[in-house]
Amino acid sequence: MSRKPVIAVVGTGQHSEPAVSNGRELGRLIAEQGWVLISGGRDGGVMKAANEGAKLESGSLTIGILPNGDTEIAAGVDVAIITNTGEARNNIIVLSADVVIACGVDDPGTASEVSLALKAGKPVIVIGADYPAREFFTKIGGEAIQFVDSPSAAIQTARMLPGT
Amino acid sequence: MSRKPVIAVVGTGQHSEPAVSNGRELGRLIAEQGWVLISGGRDGGVMKAANEGAKLESGSLTIGILPNGDTEIAAGVDVAIITNTGEARNNIIVLSADVVIACGVDDPGTASEVSLALKAGKPVIVIGADYPAREFFTKIGGEAIQFVDSPSAAIQTARMLPGT
Amino acid sequence: MSRKPVIAVVGTGQHSEPAVSNGRELGRLIAEQGWVLISGGRDGGVMKAANEGAKLESGSLTIGILPNGDTEIAAGVDVAIITNTGEARNNIIVLSADVVIACGVDDPGTASEVSLALKAGKPVIVIGADYPAREFFTKIGGEAIQFVDSPSAAIQTARMLPGT
Amino acid sequence: MSRKPVIAVVGTGQHSEPAVSNGRELGRLIAEQGWVLISGGRDGGVMKAANEGAKLESGSLTIGILPNGDTEIAAGVDVAIITNTGEARNNIIVLSADVVIACGVDDPGTASEVSLALKAGKPVIVIGADYPAREFFTKIGGEAIQFVDSPSAAIQTARMLPGT
Repeated sequence: MSRKPVIAVVGTGQHSEPAVSNGRELGRLIAEQGWVLISGGRDGGVMKAANEGAKLESGSLTIGILPNGDTEIAAGVDVAIITNTGEARNNIIVLSADVVIACGVDDPGTASEVSLALKAGKPVIVIGADYPAREFFTKIGGEAIQFVDSPSAAIQTARMLPGT
Repeated sequence: MSRKPVIAVVGTGQHSEPAVSNGRELGRLIAEQGWVLISGGRDGGVMKAANEGAKLESGSLTIGILPNGDTEIAAGVDVAIITNTGEARNNIIVLSADVVIACGVDDPGTASEVSLALKAGKPVIVIGADYPAREFFTKIGGEAIQFVDSPSAAIQTARMLPGT
Repeated sequence: MSRKPVIAVVGTGQHSEPAVSNGRELGRLIAEQGWVLISGGRDGGVMKAANEGAKLESGSLTIGILPNGDTEIAAGVDVAIITNTGEARNNIIVLSADVVIACGVDDPGTASEVSLALKAGKPVIVIGADYPAREFFTKIGGEAIQFVDSPSAAIQTARMLPGT
Repeated sequence: MSRKPVIAVVGTGQHSEPAVSNGRELGRLIAEQGWVLISGGRDGGVMKAANEGAKLESGSLTIGILPNGDTEIAAGVDVAIITNTGEARNNIIVLSADVVIACGVDDPGTASEVSLALKAGKPVIVIGADYPAREFFTKIGGEAIQFVDSPSAAIQTARMLPGT
């Protein structure tokens, strides 16, 4: 199989720093590696930023997995997959990814994505997790989840995983 | 609307104490209240125990929301809903419930259910959460999530919520 | 396994005769047999009528598999399962049933339910199909689909199938 | 919005002629137009052929919406979306497309896709439908469904629809 690695970027749909800045830089770096970016595709927060970042690199490919047909789609999304499954689409995002990278885990939506990724046996990398998030997800995820401090460290970590 | 309150019981599918004993007692108490029990319906862990507990009371009604058609169904399930959506069925469980009660949050599947419930705005009660889980979910869930020490305390808490 | 047989009743959500009258009588007959009625659960057309019919019999049990959380629920539904998966919930309805009975196949939604039931290998009975529907579904469904003229004939046919 | 048009190609997963040859030519023509091909992504029948056809053209982009994680993926699929929703993924395929083109409607899976597309209000084009299929889908689909005899006629028809 010669399909390109697919990297999911997850995080809050709200504007929150440094999650959004990290998302933008992460999107750019994913595209620079020649990897496909998959995300929730909405026009806000980390999703919007990651897709914007990816489109700064020529040849990038971005897939948005949207909850519903009437959701506003981020401008940087090349192909929008309309699931009409609401938050259950979070499971599709993580199942379709070789690696899942979260820009913080500060909201229930992102927590569900990290949890579903661990349930599915996917490797997870979290940028900038605070102390409770690190404690909790280390307890339930063990070695499948790693914590880093920057988008570039996330990419370095992802490059050492199978599937990239 | 005169439909009976529907209470979701979530927790690990493995045998783990005290989660399983709590699940059994919780199932019994839910049935005693005349509430409908909804769960993941599998023949193991908290799901199996909660359905067993409910069937100790006459007149109980138990609905299992199964991930796939070939999953073993707990003997105490009255009606099995076969979703064929894998872990995405966790979202259906919580969306269909008036209150979600977790017997511990020690595994990724249960963490996804608690997270999806909070995302959907459902009230969540956790029995016997350890310290990292309390810290993490209080941070992302605020007042929508409450922590108690026993099944009877969970029922008392649930009785004070809208929908029951 | 001693779970009661589960019979899905599908049909248009609009008011259309004789589909709606057939749905009401079918719901009543299903309940009279002691079977569980499963349907799309919406407050209109065949779904509304079938649930109403079932509730004419004491001891009936009706499960509605709703597309979304803001859908109006038929008054006769005992337990509402909120899937938030839109029309994909049609697959859940048929997968959860031992037998699928359609009151006509005159609209795309019902056609999808009959098609998904055949795909899943479920026995299908259609009441009052017109000529094009009979021709088409006989071609793609073979012996898995049977055509009858009345709710009582549908029940008689269903009683001879495995699962009831 | 400047996203490229997305065209769904649906049809049997078995080897059946002329459906498979039509699927291959259709995939090539879609790619030639600069449109994105979306399909069920499996390694058989019309799905396999359409993706193969598309990859004959440079610059093509093919998205496969797979039922489950262990399904064999067609070699011509650039990005595989793993839904783990079984046949419910048929709804995701049609919801994500601007136009749905079926290579025959001779099996329950394809019939569900055409039905779900009509339910969602998507324009549908069927190549080489036989008489019962034409009669039935014209009755339930009205002007939303058109019948043609060749892949090139399907493309011509699709070009006149909004969204392409």
